[in-house]
Amino acid sequence: MPKNNRVAVGIDLGGTSIKAGLVSETNGLIKEVSVETRAEEGPERVLDRIADLISSFRADNAAIVGVGIGAPGAINWDRTTVSGPPNFPGWSSIHMGNSLTERVGQPLLTLVENDANVAALGSAHYGVGHRFDSFIMVTLGTGVGGAIIYDNKIFRGSTGAAGEIGHMTIDYEGPFARSGVAGAIEAYLGQRFLSRHARYRLMNKKDSIMHQMADEDLQGITPKMLFDAAEFGDEGAKDVLAWAGHKLGCVLGSAVNLLDIRKIVVGGGLSAAGDYILNSTRTTLNHYVTPILQSGIEVVQETRGNDVGMLGAGHLVFQHLDEQGYPTD
Amino acid sequence: MPKNNRVAVGIDLGGTSIKAGLVSETNGLIKEVSVETRAEEGPERVLDRIADLISSFRADNAAIVGVGIGAPGAINWDRTTVSGPPNFPGWSSIHMGNSLTERVGQPLLTLVENDANVAALGSAHYGVGHRFDSFIMVTLGTGVGGAIIYDNKIFRGSTGAAGEIGHMTIDYEGPFARSGVAGAIEAYLGQRFLSRHARYRLMNKKDSIMHQMADEDLQGITPKMLFDAAEFGDEGAKDVLAWAGHKLGCVLGSAVNLLDIRKIVVGGGLSAAGDYILNSTRTTLNHYVTPILQSGIEVVQETRGNDVGMLGAGHLVFQHLDEQGYPTD
Repeated sequence: MPKNNRVAVGIDLGGTSIKAGLVSETNGLIKEVSVETRAEEGPERVLDRIADLISSFRADNAAIVGVGIGAPGAINWDRTTVSGPPNFPGWSSIHMGNSLTERVGQPLLTLVENDANVAALGSAHYGVGHRFDSFIMVTLGTGVGGAIIYDNKIFRGSTGAAGEIGHMTIDYEGPFARSGVAGAIEAYLGQRFLSRHARYRLMNKKDSIMHQMADEDLQGITPKMLFDAAEFGDEGAKDVLAWAGHKLGCVLGSAVNLLDIRKIVVGGGLSAAGDYILNSTRTTLNHYVTPILQSGIEVVQETRGNDVGMLGAGHLVFQHLDEQGYPTD
Repeated sequence: MPKNNRVAVGIDLGGTSIKAGLVSETNGLIKEVSVETRAEEGPERVLDRIADLISSFRADNAAIVGVGIGAPGAINWDRTTVSGPPNFPGWSSIHMGNSLTERVGQPLLTLVENDANVAALGSAHYGVGHRFDSFIMVTLGTGVGGAIIYDNKIFRGSTGAAGEIGHMTIDYEGPFARSGVAGAIEAYLGQRFLSRHARYRLMNKKDSIMHQMADEDLQGITPKMLFDAAEFGDEGAKDVLAWAGHKLGCVLGSAVNLLDIRKIVVGGGLSAAGDYILNSTRTTLNHYVTPILQSGIEVVQETRGNDVGMLGAGHLVFQHLDEQGYPTD
């Protein structure tokens, strides 16, 4: 089959849902299905659910060349096993290819990669990152994830865990993040931290519309609420988002200095707030990058949303086959 | 000639001296010569001096396969030109191969690379970095330089300027470095900044031996003085060096999180203070690296001193020839 007609299954294994897509190398996402993860039922049942999704795609399309999976937790260098994903009780270390092949009943080329890396790969080949050969991706979700795309591939570091931007410090005597790192950017932009910041910042601003959107005590502020309030013209919400963008600019400055990669793609739920965050990121970033590296810096929003996870997972398979010298015609 | 008998000229172009070495691929530095740079006389005279050094080596050894140069300033992606090196008046952008070939009178394979990158390459192939396939190098000199060796090669980023660790911030509201970046590590560990810190810290510690080593007002404290005083048992000097090591640990934590490269080589003048600095770096580093990346971290001192500059410059040539498919026998 011609190389560019290849299709793969791309799976985004998350704590709340498993998203699976049929990914065409040329056309991107052809079809997608999502089911609840129900990780609390244990790894065997989660694997069953993944296998069922794969089988249903295979019933439709016999020509699937492989399965790519983006997963939380630690991934080994060979991209075969997932170890200790947070919030997956009982999941120690699982060889994904073996577990899925057994369930699907046929040998199945299976590759797994860190979820942030896979999202970046998806952006690189199907999203806004397509414009750049190299870029830094930041994912602003429950936590702050990151990945490095260098020359159109994932930069994996020594063990496959590169890109932990969320744990980089911007203030060595700052507040502690969950990782125990003082002043880590996650201690400002992680969802709980940002919500708490918004709460205290807006508590005495009684004219903020947030007092109507969240509950009376401003518990449960979400990034979506902040964005909606900003769109409505709420100055308090705009201030919070600009504050978040400023902090993001500080850490990205350090990353640009270290990597000399000057293109940045921002994804994840909070990135939906777009320029309410990113304008201040852009302003700040130049203050934290040494002058010789300042030209050509761009900070852009990933507009394909979470689909980049499935897309990147599918692309893992195409890239792997190319590296193995897959016949192209 | 057998590949491993190859020799190249390695040049370390510094603001005060030009160091040139005859580098054997197998045996390292065979011979070295150093002359004053006298950059104030302009680029033409500096190039003359470099050409004279090369010619004298060639008179001794006709089999030299090329010339590698480590230089300050901006290096282009093709490793041919040096632009705007600081403290080199009148030096805009110079094609090194053309300028030297013209002077030496024979075609000359010439490669130029950023001085911090070249030092790291020297460490990787002839110094303590030989133990590691990938490592982060920090050079503590007048400023704070850095480089990334990934899979035994220089990680160059998008334009060849990766590794600017000195400009990474550890405190986004901290003191300003010369680059204009607040809280950049250079604002703590750059030589002037560290000397000033030592001065104020020790001014009222009248029992510190530093009051005898430096002048009465504690002007002119050098890293060497601090190291000597520490060796003598001076608690004040030890405190200053441990403080510097702590700050270094903070920034290296961010670098490890981003790169997943867990081996660190520390070179440059201040690194001579060894464990007076590096013990606190090691302790701090673990507090600034996320738990999943903490195993296997090592921080080691480059014991070959500034020779890694010449060695790495020579190695640039060998690596380039290998990549071009140079016949090996």
